Amino acid sequence: MRETVTAKDVAKLAGVSQSSVSRVYFEGASVSEKTKKRVKEAAEELGYRPNVYARSLITNQSKIIGLVMKGVQNPFYAQALKRFSSLFKKHGYSVLFVYTNNDEIQQEDVETLLNYNVAGVVVTDATMLFSVGEEFKKNNIPLVFFNRKLSTENFYSVCCNNIDASRSIAKYLLSKGASELVLITGKVDTSTSIEREKGFCEVLDHQKVPYRIYNSDYTYEGGYHTAMTVLKEKRLPSAIFVANDIMAFGVIDALRKNGVRIPEDTKIVGFDNIDMASWPAYELTTWEQPIEEMINETVDYLMNEIASYTGLVRDIEVDGKFIERKTT
Amino acid sequence: MRETVTAKDVAKLAGVSQSSVSRVYFEGASVSEKTKKRVKEAAEELGYRPNVYARSLITNQSKIIGLVMKGVQNPFYAQALKRFSSLFKKHGYSVLFVYTNNDEIQQEDVETLLNYNVAGVVVTDATMLFSVGEEFKKNNIPLVFFNRKLSTENFYSVCCNNIDASRSIAKYLLSKGASELVLITGKVDTSTSIEREKGFCEVLDHQKVPYRIYNSDYTYEGGYHTAMTVLKEKRLPSAIFVANDIMAFGVIDALRKNGVRIPEDTKIVGFDNIDMASWPAYELTTWEQPIEEMINETVDYLMNEIASYTGLVRDIEVDGKFIERKTT
Repeated sequence: MRETVTAKDVAKLAGVSQSSVSRVYFEGASVSEKTKKRVKEAAEELGYRPNVYARSLITNQSKIIGLVMKGVQNPFYAQALKRFSSLFKKHGYSVLFVYTNNDEIQQEDVETLLNYNVAGVVVTDATMLFSVGEEFKKNNIPLVFFNRKLSTENFYSVCCNNIDASRSIAKYLLSKGASELVLITGKVDTSTSIEREKGFCEVLDHQKVPYRIYNSDYTYEGGYHTAMTVLKEKRLPSAIFVANDIMAFGVIDALRKNGVRIPEDTKIVGFDNIDMASWPAYELTTWEQPIEEMINETVDYLMNEIASYTGLVRDIEVDGKFIERKTT
Repeated sequence: MRETVTAKDVAKLAGVSQSSVSRVYFEGASVSEKTKKRVKEAAEELGYRPNVYARSLITNQSKIIGLVMKGVQNPFYAQALKRFSSLFKKHGYSVLFVYTNNDEIQQEDVETLLNYNVAGVVVTDATMLFSVGEEFKKNNIPLVFFNRKLSTENFYSVCCNNIDASRSIAKYLLSKGASELVLITGKVDTSTSIEREKGFCEVLDHQKVPYRIYNSDYTYEGGYHTAMTVLKEKRLPSAIFVANDIMAFGVIDALRKNGVRIPEDTKIVGFDNIDMASWPAYELTTWEQPIEEMINETVDYLMNEIASYTGLVRDIEVDGKFIERKTT
């Protein structure tokens, strides 16, 4: 076991009471400048480090945000992780990174978050049982779904306006003369995939333009294999809307490998506008998710709820924009 | 402030002392089965959650590993983050993710790690002042440099055998008939880039084969721009060794955009073997870093040192293997 300098040691050296030492380090406590100076000097001499755990026990608050993520290998989420971490640091919060390898948050992860008494939680590409969410609510721990919505609509969520965006994509492809289309979905049970399908198909149904839907999984490999399936049917569509960028790269690679020219033989549109979408290997036309704005909305909500918990529930949607490149 | 059920409440309901409640929840403490049962029942009824902060204060240990990372947008590190998180979870540890946007770990990050009394630290693509490392040592907190070495050799590190690997790459390219070569380095002050340069140049010097070195930065954009510089000199080498994969993609894209055929006009070798290296868009010949083995070595060391601190210092090197694809 490690030997640690305690508040008691500092109090002794400074010639003050132990509670005076505590008051120096815990926010909001009143303490005289003279005592503060004596305590700080003694603390420095002894190498005393105020214990965040002790502070947490007293204030019943931690300076930790739980960040739940599955698809860290999708550049969209890697970028989100980077920005969330930077921004939370600015606000004085650390990130407890919870990797979940199931689509649904596992009970042990929930236990971890509750045990560390996290100040707030961000859930990215994962789902959650209703009862689990209730546990956080019971403990007044604010929680945001980032780039996901739960169908129960009982939580705060921050997403791109996926329906409007995919309507725009459909209209754009029709304006480019597309007459038979394919939609390659993401994971079928995710809100993003459901909404992107809804907006896209709504416009095509309205215009009575034929289309086919292929379900995939938001991964490069999924996109690649789904494109191979499309190719096997020997009916190349005039355009394909792929529900995210990383999957669109798989589609493009599979088509090119089979001699399909893009955009001459078929047009491709992705979704996200991750950095790679602008690489010369792809130059993908896509919809830019306003990731910075989405993250700001998420962090602002959490900071407000941490300061004063209201349990506010709302679905925030931000617009993003269309980025035209060379695949259309 | 949140209302929390305390050990005192549980003790009262169970009709036992508060220290009995503590003994039920703190590892290694002796307590009768009867007491255990009464406490667990009372805890469930009240919704009591043993506080990890209280436990940490008593045992002076936490179940948190600090993971310091800069390049989370490089798929190599995203993959490492995923595997580290999974493996630490299996061992009962959570990950405090510390994103550093400087090459050197910032003092505030060090404070965070020390304040949370982390059980151990993994530093990936970042450097650290000698004095900072000493702070962890003073607190008996084991620390591993993952995919990095410090020149002071005063810390445990786990790397690929970069020198041997880059020697093999040089020999391979010579065996393929390369007669004038280019090396595109990573960040010049990183141990990985220094060692990859050392092994590569050693073989070429020995064989008296001419080569040029261009310094870059381990990013796609860096690779792209460096390749443009190489092209401007109008002396296309017969082969280019690029110090990591993501930078190699930038090199390939820049060359292709300028009509250079790969591997006909020049051969390209990368380093890492990230998933993307096998994508049809690149099919990159590269050196596979044995990431799983490297992570296992790192986690094993940390778990041993957490169980019983020895302060062991060693540079662990694992081999990896050559992966031949279509860019050579």
